[in-house]
Amino acid sequence: MNTKEMEKNPMPFDGLHEECGVFGMYDFDGGDVASTIYYGLFALQHRGQESCGIAVSDTSGPKGRVQSYKDMGLVNEVFTPEILGKLNGDIGVGHVRYSTAGASTRENAQPLVLNYVKGTLALAHNGNLINANELRHDLEYTGAIFQTTIDTEVIAYHIARERLNSKTAEEAVRRAVAKLKGAFSLVVASPRKLIGARDPFGFKPLCIGKRDNAYILTSETCALETIGAEFIRDVRPGEVVTISPEGGIQSDMSLALAPEKEARCIFEYIYFARPDSHIDGVSVYGSRIKAGRFLAMDSPVDADLVVGVPESGNAAALGYSLQSGIPYGTAFVKNSYVGRTFIKPKQSSRESSVRVKLNVLKEAVAGKRIIMIDDSIVRGTTSDRIVKMLRDAGATEVHVRISSPPFLWPCYFGTDIPEREQLIAYNRTIDEIREIIGADSLGYLDVERLEELSEGLSICKGCFNGIYPLEPPKEDIRGSYEK
Amino acid sequence: MNTKEMEKNPMPFDGLHEECGVFGMYDFDGGDVASTIYYGLFALQHRGQESCGIAVSDTSGPKGRVQSYKDMGLVNEVFTPEILGKLNGDIGVGHVRYSTAGASTRENAQPLVLNYVKGTLALAHNGNLINANELRHDLEYTGAIFQTTIDTEVIAYHIARERLNSKTAEEAVRRAVAKLKGAFSLVVASPRKLIGARDPFGFKPLCIGKRDNAYILTSETCALETIGAEFIRDVRPGEVVTISPEGGIQSDMSLALAPEKEARCIFEYIYFARPDSHIDGVSVYGSRIKAGRFLAMDSPVDADLVVGVPESGNAAALGYSLQSGIPYGTAFVKNSYVGRTFIKPKQSSRESSVRVKLNVLKEAVAGKRIIMIDDSIVRGTTSDRIVKMLRDAGATEVHVRISSPPFLWPCYFGTDIPEREQLIAYNRTIDEIREIIGADSLGYLDVERLEELSEGLSICKGCFNGIYPLEPPKEDIRGSYEK
Amino acid sequence: MNTKEMEKNPMPFDGLHEECGVFGMYDFDGGDVASTIYYGLFALQHRGQESCGIAVSDTSGPKGRVQSYKDMGLVNEVFTPEILGKLNGDIGVGHVRYSTAGASTRENAQPLVLNYVKGTLALAHNGNLINANELRHDLEYTGAIFQTTIDTEVIAYHIARERLNSKTAEEAVRRAVAKLKGAFSLVVASPRKLIGARDPFGFKPLCIGKRDNAYILTSETCALETIGAEFIRDVRPGEVVTISPEGGIQSDMSLALAPEKEARCIFEYIYFARPDSHIDGVSVYGSRIKAGRFLAMDSPVDADLVVGVPESGNAAALGYSLQSGIPYGTAFVKNSYVGRTFIKPKQSSRESSVRVKLNVLKEAVAGKRIIMIDDSIVRGTTSDRIVKMLRDAGATEVHVRISSPPFLWPCYFGTDIPEREQLIAYNRTIDEIREIIGADSLGYLDVERLEELSEGLSICKGCFNGIYPLEPPKEDIRGSYEK
Amino acid sequence: MNTKEMEKNPMPFDGLHEECGVFGMYDFDGGDVASTIYYGLFALQHRGQESCGIAVSDTSGPKGRVQSYKDMGLVNEVFTPEILGKLNGDIGVGHVRYSTAGASTRENAQPLVLNYVKGTLALAHNGNLINANELRHDLEYTGAIFQTTIDTEVIAYHIARERLNSKTAEEAVRRAVAKLKGAFSLVVASPRKLIGARDPFGFKPLCIGKRDNAYILTSETCALETIGAEFIRDVRPGEVVTISPEGGIQSDMSLALAPEKEARCIFEYIYFARPDSHIDGVSVYGSRIKAGRFLAMDSPVDADLVVGVPESGNAAALGYSLQSGIPYGTAFVKNSYVGRTFIKPKQSSRESSVRVKLNVLKEAVAGKRIIMIDDSIVRGTTSDRIVKMLRDAGATEVHVRISSPPFLWPCYFGTDIPEREQLIAYNRTIDEIREIIGADSLGYLDVERLEELSEGLSICKGCFNGIYPLEPPKEDIRGSYEK
Repeated sequence: MNTKEMEKNPMPFDGLHEECGVFGMYDFDGGDVASTIYYGLFALQHRGQESCGIAVSDTSGPKGRVQSYKDMGLVNEVFTPEILGKLNGDIGVGHVRYSTAGASTRENAQPLVLNYVKGTLALAHNGNLINANELRHDLEYTGAIFQTTIDTEVIAYHIARERLNSKTAEEAVRRAVAKLKGAFSLVVASPRKLIGARDPFGFKPLCIGKRDNAYILTSETCALETIGAEFIRDVRPGEVVTISPEGGIQSDMSLALAPEKEARCIFEYIYFARPDSHIDGVSVYGSRIKAGRFLAMDSPVDADLVVGVPESGNAAALGYSLQSGIPYGTAFVKNSYVGRTFIKPKQSSRESSVRVKLNVLKEAVAGKRIIMIDDSIVRGTTSDRIVKMLRDAGATEVHVRISSPPFLWPCYFGTDIPEREQLIAYNRTIDEIREIIGADSLGYLDVERLEELSEGLSICKGCFNGIYPLEPPKEDIRGSYEK
Repeated sequence: MNTKEMEKNPMPFDGLHEECGVFGMYDFDGGDVASTIYYGLFALQHRGQESCGIAVSDTSGPKGRVQSYKDMGLVNEVFTPEILGKLNGDIGVGHVRYSTAGASTRENAQPLVLNYVKGTLALAHNGNLINANELRHDLEYTGAIFQTTIDTEVIAYHIARERLNSKTAEEAVRRAVAKLKGAFSLVVASPRKLIGARDPFGFKPLCIGKRDNAYILTSETCALETIGAEFIRDVRPGEVVTISPEGGIQSDMSLALAPEKEARCIFEYIYFARPDSHIDGVSVYGSRIKAGRFLAMDSPVDADLVVGVPESGNAAALGYSLQSGIPYGTAFVKNSYVGRTFIKPKQSSRESSVRVKLNVLKEAVAGKRIIMIDDSIVRGTTSDRIVKMLRDAGATEVHVRISSPPFLWPCYFGTDIPEREQLIAYNRTIDEIREIIGADSLGYLDVERLEELSEGLSICKGCFNGIYPLEPPKEDIRGSYEK
Repeated sequence: MNTKEMEKNPMPFDGLHEECGVFGMYDFDGGDVASTIYYGLFALQHRGQESCGIAVSDTSGPKGRVQSYKDMGLVNEVFTPEILGKLNGDIGVGHVRYSTAGASTRENAQPLVLNYVKGTLALAHNGNLINANELRHDLEYTGAIFQTTIDTEVIAYHIARERLNSKTAEEAVRRAVAKLKGAFSLVVASPRKLIGARDPFGFKPLCIGKRDNAYILTSETCALETIGAEFIRDVRPGEVVTISPEGGIQSDMSLALAPEKEARCIFEYIYFARPDSHIDGVSVYGSRIKAGRFLAMDSPVDADLVVGVPESGNAAALGYSLQSGIPYGTAFVKNSYVGRTFIKPKQSSRESSVRVKLNVLKEAVAGKRIIMIDDSIVRGTTSDRIVKMLRDAGATEVHVRISSPPFLWPCYFGTDIPEREQLIAYNRTIDEIREIIGADSLGYLDVERLEELSEGLSICKGCFNGIYPLEPPKEDIRGSYEK
Repeated sequence: MNTKEMEKNPMPFDGLHEECGVFGMYDFDGGDVASTIYYGLFALQHRGQESCGIAVSDTSGPKGRVQSYKDMGLVNEVFTPEILGKLNGDIGVGHVRYSTAGASTRENAQPLVLNYVKGTLALAHNGNLINANELRHDLEYTGAIFQTTIDTEVIAYHIARERLNSKTAEEAVRRAVAKLKGAFSLVVASPRKLIGARDPFGFKPLCIGKRDNAYILTSETCALETIGAEFIRDVRPGEVVTISPEGGIQSDMSLALAPEKEARCIFEYIYFARPDSHIDGVSVYGSRIKAGRFLAMDSPVDADLVVGVPESGNAAALGYSLQSGIPYGTAFVKNSYVGRTFIKPKQSSRESSVRVKLNVLKEAVAGKRIIMIDDSIVRGTTSDRIVKMLRDAGATEVHVRISSPPFLWPCYFGTDIPEREQLIAYNRTIDEIREIIGADSLGYLDVERLEELSEGLSICKGCFNGIYPLEPPKEDIRGSYEK
C-alpha cells in the first residue's frame, strides 16, 4: 500500500513480458472523463495490478495542459475522490499495468505524459515491441534521452519526430507505428484528438465504444459494458483510428496485412481477457466453453464430476460437462481476498501458499472421480498441490485437462513465460508430466483446435510451436539493454 | 489504506449488528503464533473487512507482556512482515471486524488488550449482547470507565471483576459470561491459558483445532484447513473451554441449555460462513446445496438454465440443478477487485454500482429461460437490477429463487438488518415483491425447511418469524447509549 | 511520519519520565475550539514531540459526544485541515507528549477520552505520579481494567469512582487528585465544564487565559500569546479550578500547602519552558539571564567571547556577558531541520551526530578564548565533542559554564534522567569532569542560587541534592509494573 | 508527508525562480556514497524543502545501472534506512529543491536520471536558465519530448546530443553548457566520472571537497564540514571539472570570463547560504557581520539594544553592535517547529501567522530603544507586524535596519521575487516605507557596499539596480511555455 517502493532504475526491456489494459475517452460535449476512465480501468484491473494512472486534458483550454496521476497499486487504492476531483478534462487516457518485479517502478507507470513540438501528448500502451532496443539505440544515436524503460517512451519519441514531417497528429502516429515491430495496442490523447493504433498482427485487442456523445478506445468490451457504453466495433489489426468532433471516427488501414497474416494472441481468449468480453467479434466465454468441449471430444474419460480451477478453468469445465454429459460442479473455494499485496511471513510447511488461496469442498468431491480443468500448466508446481488436495479430500481419481496446448517456447509479444528450462512441458512427454503432477490422466488441448477457438481468425501459436508471425529477436531481449 | 481515519468517539452499541471472526492459538512447544494467526485471519477475512488485529504474549516471559497491533483495513493491508516479525509469543488471539460505518474506528478494533489484577488479557469477540447497555450502566455506577463502544470491553470488565472471587481465570470467564445475554463466541488469552466461550444458544460458531502441539480456537473450520491444522471438535453451545499444557482441553458445560433451546444463527449456513467450513458438524456447502434442492422441490419451474448470483448463490443453484435436472451454469462475471475500499466518484446514471461489480455473459443466457438463485433479498434494490441485466442480455424468462425465507424482523444477535420499513418483504406479498424486482416468478425457501439445513440442530428463526430465543430488548439498542 | 508504529503493550509506568504539554479551552459563545487548540499545541510543541491529540465536544449537543483524534507525530504532521474540520465543539483539550522510547505507542497518546457514569470525559495530563503503581493495584483489586500504561488512566478511574459520591464533576476531580502523589497538571473537559488541577507542590506549570468569551487552561503562557489570548493568572499549586458559563472561574484551594512546601521543578525555568513564558509570575527568560549572571559572579574567567550552546544556552550566555562585560556572540550554526525523525544510516566515524546538528563559525571563534554556556551536562558525551569542535575551529581556550548544578539523583516527577551510574557528575569531582570534556575550566551554577532564579518561590532540588519534597518510591518505578 | 500529492503536469518554466542544493560524490575506493550524500543533503536542506532525491551507481557494475529515489518532502522524511540501504553505489548525486507552488510535483524532483547513447546519467542542478524556452523549442523542432518542466531536462538533452560529437563525457558537458544562458551549478554522474559545471558568471556556488579517497562536488562548504570532508577549492565561474580515478580533478576553463564580468548572486551571502559556509573564499558569516557594521556606519542611530530577526538577521545585528557599541541581544523566540508543512486552519484575526512563528521576549525589550536588523523587506507585510509586536512588548523606539539594498527589479537567475508592483520599495521613498512598517527610522544597506561584502569579487546587482550581467528575456519567462 503506502510503503514507498524503491524506484529502481533502467533495466531496459524488463517490460517485455507485460500485460496491460488501456482506456481512452473523449467527450465531445465537454464533460469530465476522469471518473468514467476510473470505472473503465476498474473493469480492466485483471489486465494489470501493479500500477495505474489517468491523464486528462481540457480540449477547450490551453493546448497541452494535462493533469495526470499515477502510482503503484490497484485502481481503487491509487485513486481517491479528491484526486479524481482534480483531474478535469474532456479527453484522457488511463492505464493498468503488470510487469515482472524488476521494473516495477513508479517511473514506469503509465500513461506517459510529455511535451513535444505540438503541445502535449498522453500515451497508454499494451503490448511488447521486439525492435524497441534497436529503435532506442537509433534514437540515442541522434541524441535522445530516456527516463523510463518502457516501450511507450520509444513510441512517443517516434511520434514526436514524425510529427515534424506530418500534417496531422494521426499521420505522425501512423508513421511512427509503421516502424514498430511487435505487439501494440496504443491509445494517444493529443490536444484535440483521441488516436488509437493496433499492430498489423492484432496481437492485443482494442475496441471502440460510444456513450452519448463520448467515444472510447479500450482493451476489452467488458469495460464498455461496465460504463454503460455501446460497442461500436473493434479496431482492426493494422488500423489507426482518429476520433475528433470534426471527423468522427476516421480510419487509416494502410498498415494492415492480409487477414491470414494476422496473429492474435490466443491467450487473450484462453486466459487474459475477462470472459464477458468479445475480441474481434468472438466471445471469450464462448471460446472457453469450446475449449472444454474439444477436451471432452479429444481427451474423453469416464468420471463423476467436472470441476474448474477457479476462476479461469470454470468455463472450460462447463464446456467439458456440456459435451460429455458428466455433471459440472464446484470443488474449490477460493479466498477472494488473495490479491497483489498478499505477504508471505515465514511459513511452516503446513501453511502452503496454495492452501491459502484454495480449499477443497470435501462434500463435493469425496468418493468421486474428478475431471479437473485448468487453463495452463507452466512450471507444474501448483498443479501437483491441487491434485493432492483433491485426493486428500477423498477424490478417487483425478483427471487433469488443460484448455491450452503445452507451453514450449518463449513469447516475445507480451506474455510472461519463464525460461524454457523451467517449463514443465519442455523435454517431457505428456505421461511424464502426468506423473509429476500426480494425475490419473492428463490431456492438453490440441494445437490444431486453436483456430476453432477464435472462429477461424488467424492467431499466433508461437509459444506452442515456436513459429512466430515475425522473426523473433536473436538476443534475449529481456535485460539486454545494459551497457 | 493509509488515510488517517477520523477517530469518532463513543456511540455506544453502534457495534450491535456486527459480524466478526476470531482466531486464538497456543503453541505448547513455545513456537511463535503470530504468523499462523495471520494466515488464520486471512481465511476468516470474509467475516469482517473493516479492521483487524493480533495480540500475542510469551508464556515463558513476564506475566502480562502482550505485543499487539491493530488497525483499520484488510489483514494483508494491516500486517507487514516487519510488524509480524515483532509480534513474538506462543499464545495469542486475532480478530477481523465488520461494523456499521458509524463506529468504524481504530479504538474499536480488536483484540482488546488490558491489564487487570492478574496480569494481562487479550480478548477477541464475535457476537452481540442485548444486555450490554444494562451491564455497562451497572458497571458505570460502580465507577467503571469505558474507552471503546464495543461489547468486548463490557465482557472484559466482568472477567476482571469476577477474577477477584475466582480461583482461576476460566472460573472468572465462566462467571462473567453467565451474566451476558445474547450472542458471543469469545477467545481469551490469559498469561498461561487460552480460553474459549460460546453462548448457550450457540448463535455464532467456534471450534477447536490442533497442529502438532499447538491448539487453536477459531470461528470456522476453513481457518484450520488453511493453516494445516486438524479439526478436533466444535466448542459446544454454553461451553467454556480452557486450553493449557497442564490440562489439555478442559470443558465446563455448566451454562449449557437443553439442545432444543439452542438457537444457531441459520445465516451462518446460508450466507456468512465460507462454504468449505463445517459448523457443529454440518457442512455449510451441504446446507446450501440442500437449500437449492428444497427450492427445486417447493418452487419448481421449467427453465433452461440455473445460475447463482456470485458467490453465495452458486451452491444453492447447483443444488437446484441437481434436484431439478435443469443444467447449472454461469451467467455472471464478478469483478474480483471489488472490495471494501471501492470508492464511488460521481457516477452518471450509466455507471451503476451493480454493473461495476457484475456483468452478464450474454452467450450463456441469450434466448434462455433462467432460474437465478440468490441467498436473500433485503431491500430489493440490487435484485431488480440483476434481473434487468439478464433480460437485457437476452434471457426470455427470469425466475428468482431465494435460498432463505423473507426477512421480516430485526436481528439483535449480530446480523446487520435494516429497519423493518426498509425490508422489501415487510407488508408485501410475494407477488408484490416479484413485481418490484421484475421477475417472472419468485420463490423463497420455506421457513419450515431451515431445520433441515442444519440437519436438525436447533436454530434461531427470529429474523423470519419474530420469535426470538431470548426476550429482545425493548428499546432499539442501536445508538441508545448516548446521554 | 505515517509508518505504522508497532503498538507495544503494557509496560506500565514507562511513562514515568515524561514531559508533556496541555491545552484546554471552553468558548462560552459556542465557537469551535479545535483550530485554536491546534495553534496552542503548536506553541507547546517543545514540551513533547512524540504524539499529540485533540478531543472536543459540543456543550449544546448530547452529553458525552466527544470527537477526538490523536496519533504519533508532531502537531503539524498529525493534523490536517480535513481532520480539524471534523473536530467540532466549543469545549476541548489537547496534548503533546514525550516519553521514553519503550512506551511510545498510539494507545498511550492523549487526551484520554472515556465514558463514565455521567457521560464523557476528556483528560490531558502533564506530570508523573509516584503512587500510580499503588493506585493501579488498588483499582485492579476492585476489578478495574487498564488499556494504557499512562497515569492519566489511573486518574480517570479515580474521578469516575469519586463521581459516584460527588455532587459535581469538580468535586470528583478534587477528591480524585487528593489521592495522587507526585506531579500533575491536569485539564479535564467534562460535558459542561473545563476543570484544571495542579498538584500541591506545583511541580509543573498551569495557567489560565482568556480571549473574548473563551477560557483557556494551558501549560505555558507562550501558548496564550500565540493565540492572542490574555493571561489571567497561574493555577496555584494545589488548586482545582472550574470554568463554566454559570460560575466563571471557580477556585478550590483545599489541597494547597504552605508556600514553603511547594516544590516547583526548577528545570522548567532552566530548560523545559519556552523563554517567552512566565511561570508563577517569573519570566523564564529572566531566570536564564540571571543564571548566566550568577555564573559570571561565581565562576568568573577572563575570555574574549561568551557563547551559548543553542538554543537553551543562549540566554544564560547573554546573562554572563552582561554581568562580565565580555562580549556575547554566536559560535554555532544549528541545523534547523534536526528533529524527532532524523534517522541515522550507518555513519562513518567522520559523520558524527553532533556535527550533523551543530557546526562552528570559525570566523567567530578563531584565535579567541571562549566561554561556552550550556544548560546542563548529563552523560557528557556531547560536551566533549562540542569543546573539541571549538578548539578545531581555532579557539585558544574553552571555558565551560553550566547554568544548573550537577545532576546527581534521579527524578521521580517527570524529568527523564538516566541511571546515576550514567551521570557524569556521579562520583566525580568537577575537575574530573572538566578533564573528561576537555575544557580549560568548568563551572556549575551553585545549588544555592536556584531559589534566586525563581525569585524566591519554593522549588524542588531533588535531582541535585537527593532531598525530595515527598518521599520517593522505594522501588524503581520505571518498568516495575510487570507481573 | 505521505499524502499523495497531485502530479500536475507541464507548466514549463515554473521552476524559474527556484533555489536548490546539489551534492555529488565519487568514492574511488568503491565505498557506498548514498548515506554520505544523505548527510550532505541534510546540511543543504535550507536551500530547498520541497522535494529531494539521491541517485547512485556502481562504477564497477554494468555501465548505466542507476538506483534512485526521490519524492516530495524533507530529506529526513523521504529517506528511511531501508531506502538508503538499497541505494548501493560508489558514485552518485543528490538534490534538494524549492520551487513555487505550481510546479511542485514529483516528476520535477531531481536528480534527473536518464539513459542516453553512452549509458546512464544522473544530473542535479541549481540555478535558472533564461534561454531554456528557446532551447526547449529548438529541441522540440528536432523531435525531442519532455517529461518534466525543469531546466535540468533541457541541459540533459544537450549533453546527450553533444555526446555524439564528443570524445568524452566532459567534452559533451562543456559543449552543452556553452549553449546555456543564465545561472547553473550542475553536477553530473556519468558511469565513470563525476562532472561539475558552474556558469561563467558564477551566480550560484559550487565547491570541491575530499574525504579519504572520495571526492565531493557540492553547493556549500557547510555540507563538507558536516560529513567531515576537507575543502579543496571552489569550482570557478565558467569551469567544468571532471573527477575520475584516472585523472583526479581535471579542469576546463574555456568558458571562463574575465573576473570583472563575473556576477555572483549577492543574496547567497546575505540570505541563502548557511552562515558557516564560505563561497569563493569569502565567509558568509563574515559578510553578514560586515553588512551590520556598514549599517552602523551609514545609518547610525542611538539606541539601547540591537536585535536580529531570527535567524538570518542575527549576524548582521551582531555586526551592528560590534561597530556601534550598542549591546547585542535577543528579542524574539522563534518556534523551531515551523516548517514546510505548517497548515493553516481557519484563523481568527487573533492568531496571526507571524505570532505563530515569532514571539517577543518582553523582558528583553520593555522600556528600550531597539534597533531591529532584518535581511530584506519584500512586500513589507511581515515587517509591520514584527515592529508592532516590539512596541506591544514595551519597546519605546523601533529602528529598522536592512542588511541589503531595496528590491526594485525582478531576478531571472534563481531568486523568487514577486512582481514589481508587489515590492514595497517599488515607487516609494524610504520614508514612505518606514511609515508603512511603522518604524521610527529605517535604513537599508547602500548598494555601493555590496562589493565589500564579497571582498571585491564581482557580483550581480540586478535586483537592486536593474542592470543585469546578461540581457534579460523580453517575455516574462514564468509560465510562458504553454501552447
